[in-house]
Amino acid sequence: MSWTLPRERLEEASEHTGLSHHTKASGLTLSQLTLHTQEENHKNFNFFHYSLQSMHLPNAFFNSFLESGKSTLACSLSRELHSKGKLSYILDGDNLRHGLNKDLGFKAEDRTENIRRVGEVAKLFADAGLICIASLISPYRKDRDACRAMLPEASFIEVFMNMPLELCESRDAKGLYKLARAGKIKGFTGIDDPYERPLNCEIEIEQKDGVCPKPAALAGQVVSYLEEKGFLQVE
Amino acid sequence: MSWTLPRERLEEASEHTGLSHHTKASGLTLSQLTLHTQEENHKNFNFFHYSLQSMHLPNAFFNSFLESGKSTLACSLSRELHSKGKLSYILDGDNLRHGLNKDLGFKAEDRTENIRRVGEVAKLFADAGLICIASLISPYRKDRDACRAMLPEASFIEVFMNMPLELCESRDAKGLYKLARAGKIKGFTGIDDPYERPLNCEIEIEQKDGVCPKPAALAGQVVSYLEEKGFLQVE
Repeated sequence: MSWTLPRERLEEASEHTGLSHHTKASGLTLSQLTLHTQEENHKNFNFFHYSLQSMHLPNAFFNSFLESGKSTLACSLSRELHSKGKLSYILDGDNLRHGLNKDLGFKAEDRTENIRRVGEVAKLFADAGLICIASLISPYRKDRDACRAMLPEASFIEVFMNMPLELCESRDAKGLYKLARAGKIKGFTGIDDPYERPLNCEIEIEQKDGVCPKPAALAGQVVSYLEEKGFLQVE
Repeated sequence: MSWTLPRERLEEASEHTGLSHHTKASGLTLSQLTLHTQEENHKNFNFFHYSLQSMHLPNAFFNSFLESGKSTLACSLSRELHSKGKLSYILDGDNLRHGLNKDLGFKAEDRTENIRRVGEVAKLFADAGLICIASLISPYRKDRDACRAMLPEASFIEVFMNMPLELCESRDAKGLYKLARAGKIKGFTGIDDPYERPLNCEIEIEQKDGVCPKPAALAGQVVSYLEEKGFLQVE
């Protein structure tokens, strides 16, 4: 089933087009308005989505080691946003490696391309009106900074899951750390490949007194940030 | 502004989870239900979107020569869907070549990768609950068939804009046909690169009595198809 918008939302849209008063005052219908918008900017294909965005939507990028709890937190955040009536979509690094990014490996240049594509897709989702939650291992600072630079200002929210490597390694649900320690997997982040900690992330998630807070509490931390920045306002 | 769903839609979601009667009858809250769904399938990250989809969403792929009117029709279709309260998103081949696909050229293998990525992104959008409208030049049958194969059955809707090359060439808004005829652009679809006409497209758009119907009329043709197939049903 696709989303069906109530009539008021369609009318609301015409209130948020950002068109000039002149255009608004001309008494055009919504359909004429959007056509007009389209004529004003022929690159503006997704007129309705653009027209509804009075501010850029955030893209939350969770980043850390394997088994740090990124995906769990992403799910929890998505649920939390959903309970507030906000549409979001999770771009999960692992899943994308079975689809869009299945041609990429784990060499430095492939990791660069991996996050570049995730950033580009996040941009499309934000453009479509969804809050995009990316969850992936992107160990190099320059790649994350490039991704930040490609997104509209303030809309890239870097969430660093600052979990001790030992904790992540102790989880090892897929046995990959074990294989990496045995030298059977090369270029493994945190083992024989570096993880460059962020210098300027928006949110840092940490243990409290040696205990990792529950996902819902961590999601709450992200939601509070989004609320403070006005991203979740009902307009 | 992001989408804000009215409370009824959130409740509705729990009616469409597709979970077993056993689970439904257990009296779990929506949040517990979705957590349950997540436990049932840990790959199912975007629980809410999945849960709302009682059928796969269509992906309309417009395809033809440059200047055939693909993007105009895509816009018109998006507007038409919007007037019916359906969210859609246009993936425009030209625009994507400034972002996600900016590393690709026009060689055969790059064209293959171009439509592969568009297909993968369309899949993500459909998964997120939006009708995806792709508008791109994809001249090789095998690439389009590969894209069809990667999407859920019946959800790839190939729309062939069967416009005479002469008509497209006469429009030539960017002067690219002229450059191609002069041999200044190589590998140009329809000039020195083939366009393999579809053998099994779902919709064929044609001129009527030598005149190209208005975009709204053409969009209506696509909407009728989607309605007939039950894609636009309000559930």
